[in-house]
Amino acid sequence: MWRELLPVGREPRSGGYRRYAWSDADAECRAWFREQAEARGLAYEVDRNGNQWAWLGDPSEGDAVVTGSHLDSVPDGGAFDGPLGVVSSFAALDELRARESAPRRPVGIVNFGDEEGARFGLACVGSRLTAGQLSPEAARELRDADGVSLPEAMERAGYDPAAIGPDPERLARIGAFVELHVEQGRALDLSGDPVGIASAIWPHGRWRFDFRGEANHAGTTRLDDRRDPMLTYATTVLAARKKARLAGALATFGKVAVEPNGVNAIPSLVRGWLDSRAADEETLAAVVEEIERAATERGSRDGVDVTVTRESFTPVVEFEHALRDHVAKLLGPPVPVLPTGAGHDAGILSASVPTAMLFVRNPTGVSHSPAEAAAEDDCLAGVTALADVLEGLACP
Amino acid sequence: MWRELLPVGREPRSGGYRRYAWSDADAECRAWFREQAEARGLAYEVDRNGNQWAWLGDPSEGDAVVTGSHLDSVPDGGAFDGPLGVVSSFAALDELRARESAPRRPVGIVNFGDEEGARFGLACVGSRLTAGQLSPEAARELRDADGVSLPEAMERAGYDPAAIGPDPERLARIGAFVELHVEQGRALDLSGDPVGIASAIWPHGRWRFDFRGEANHAGTTRLDDRRDPMLTYATTVLAARKKARLAGALATFGKVAVEPNGVNAIPSLVRGWLDSRAADEETLAAVVEEIERAATERGSRDGVDVTVTRESFTPVVEFEHALRDHVAKLLGPPVPVLPTGAGHDAGILSASVPTAMLFVRNPTGVSHSPAEAAAEDDCLAGVTALADVLEGLACP
Repeated sequence: MWRELLPVGREPRSGGYRRYAWSDADAECRAWFREQAEARGLAYEVDRNGNQWAWLGDPSEGDAVVTGSHLDSVPDGGAFDGPLGVVSSFAALDELRARESAPRRPVGIVNFGDEEGARFGLACVGSRLTAGQLSPEAARELRDADGVSLPEAMERAGYDPAAIGPDPERLARIGAFVELHVEQGRALDLSGDPVGIASAIWPHGRWRFDFRGEANHAGTTRLDDRRDPMLTYATTVLAARKKARLAGALATFGKVAVEPNGVNAIPSLVRGWLDSRAADEETLAAVVEEIERAATERGSRDGVDVTVTRESFTPVVEFEHALRDHVAKLLGPPVPVLPTGAGHDAGILSASVPTAMLFVRNPTGVSHSPAEAAAEDDCLAGVTALADVLEGLACP
Repeated sequence: MWRELLPVGREPRSGGYRRYAWSDADAECRAWFREQAEARGLAYEVDRNGNQWAWLGDPSEGDAVVTGSHLDSVPDGGAFDGPLGVVSSFAALDELRARESAPRRPVGIVNFGDEEGARFGLACVGSRLTAGQLSPEAARELRDADGVSLPEAMERAGYDPAAIGPDPERLARIGAFVELHVEQGRALDLSGDPVGIASAIWPHGRWRFDFRGEANHAGTTRLDDRRDPMLTYATTVLAARKKARLAGALATFGKVAVEPNGVNAIPSLVRGWLDSRAADEETLAAVVEEIERAATERGSRDGVDVTVTRESFTPVVEFEHALRDHVAKLLGPPVPVLPTGAGHDAGILSASVPTAMLFVRNPTGVSHSPAEAAAEDDCLAGVTALADVLEGLACP
């Protein structure tokens, strides 16, 4: 099952995956999902937002137990982020059948569309639309780098974009959602555990820093006469790292745009995007405020104006404690309970449905890169854990 | 004369000029040059490399005195860089005639094509080709951002690209070349002089710094597990400024490219271009070496590989002392003799022909920007100075 999926959307040069929403590679992944569902005699359906579902039992009975994840990827992403959760879901269902455990609740497997947001710039589009956290109007405005809109892309892939929108009835049928995911850090590697449970998703946000100086000739302008925003930017990058370290938070400048971006031109504008996350919202606000202060202080020395715009913010997601404790009990021996800095469909759904997450150890800790990894034994331990949870929830 | 040229290629939004080689705006500037020549009864010609010439007297007599500059601009450049030299050349010739000074040597005015290199990425293409410092083969490989080659662009503008190449016979006719140019720094403003003479063009070069780390998720990767090349880059930017300041040199990072350049991705690669210049080649080499050392040291702490590639290097240009001293004497009261960090057609020609440069005060010191400035009185002082020099050289 895993082997069939491995070559889809793989870029030979980098060894990474390029499975963007509504692309040909995405269509291949979706065809694979449907085959897996039908091979097991599961009822297959696609919802109004293009998310795929496979059902054992009748979901209209309600109080369903749902597992799953996503099949799309970031540019040159790894093999596990997303697919491990979907593959493990089918494998866990096989395990339940091997155990001859008959579910008393409907059991579903879902592949949420466009989780990574690699094509249209917004993550978790499929789950956001379903949960009513993204309006159809806003979704219709999304465009990819080639100017193709989300509705156009859906239509080209054979889906009906007119139907997109909130789906509260579908969510109301779900009694619990459990997403298994490869860990995107090294906490389990450091603790020596193959599987862990998520406690929360850290609050996180994106801030755009605009550093405005004065364009000038790099070969003739005295250093004293310059208003060089690259200097202010550089100071801010280093300050971000330092403030985050002192606060136990994360802060990253991974994207930058420069005007005019000429080798012999002092820039007029350097624009840098800060991604910052912390365990709680107060710490996050304090870190960003300190970075902003460092930028402004250096800017006043450089003759550079600094403006900061918050482009997005996601509050902390605490996974429901009752379900989390129940899942922990079902796993038997104590497993680590750990927070994550990354957003997930499970985080989106947690506002509507009791939700839990399982993490599988990633020995490299690397994510969104071909270096992402999971040992076969750990993947199998993840399947067993997910099967235990499904059995405990659906076959009591 | 000046007023006719002012609106050509002006971008209304920025107030800056976009007169790129072989563009429509360039054609308008060239038509203006031809009109000026013909209105004065000068012999007009275009050489094999598309440079425009206007002659008083017969250049084939040899030992000509030539002045001029260029009419093209950088993106959103100022009004003076280039055009001030050409306009002042025609005005100085008018002044000679008003003084009823009859030249005994041929006097020429030149507009060198594509001095700024804004379109094809290489500066001084017209003078380099003529002086044999750029081969026709290499010139034919030049392409603009839209993929248009230099020959295609010349052909579209009505010029014959088959003819481009060295023109030693034309250069052999020139006894002296004097280029007037707006100053691109504030030395004359600080010394209080309207006009100065160039001593030398600083050696300068471009170095590409490749900082290679490891792409990873900005939301989940512990700070200790990161190999973030943006940190190494930021440290290098600040080190460049510091090392240049201590050495009395210039160092600028004005261009940067990031991969994958995603807000939530630690970069795998940050590429920054260093432009550095100094009064002598030893100082320049030492500054670049120190910047490279600072980059490598920080890189080893960040787990980031640093490689440095010299992309271009121009040795120091010392303008001929005899001509420089002669020009200084012709100007009467002592004027400042100052170096410049910027390249010029005069620098290219200085390898083939005795060459001098006059600078006109720029009160803002800003260059390659609409904020570039020159007072009317200073422009007139420049014309008088240029007329004095032409008269002294050609009408002894």
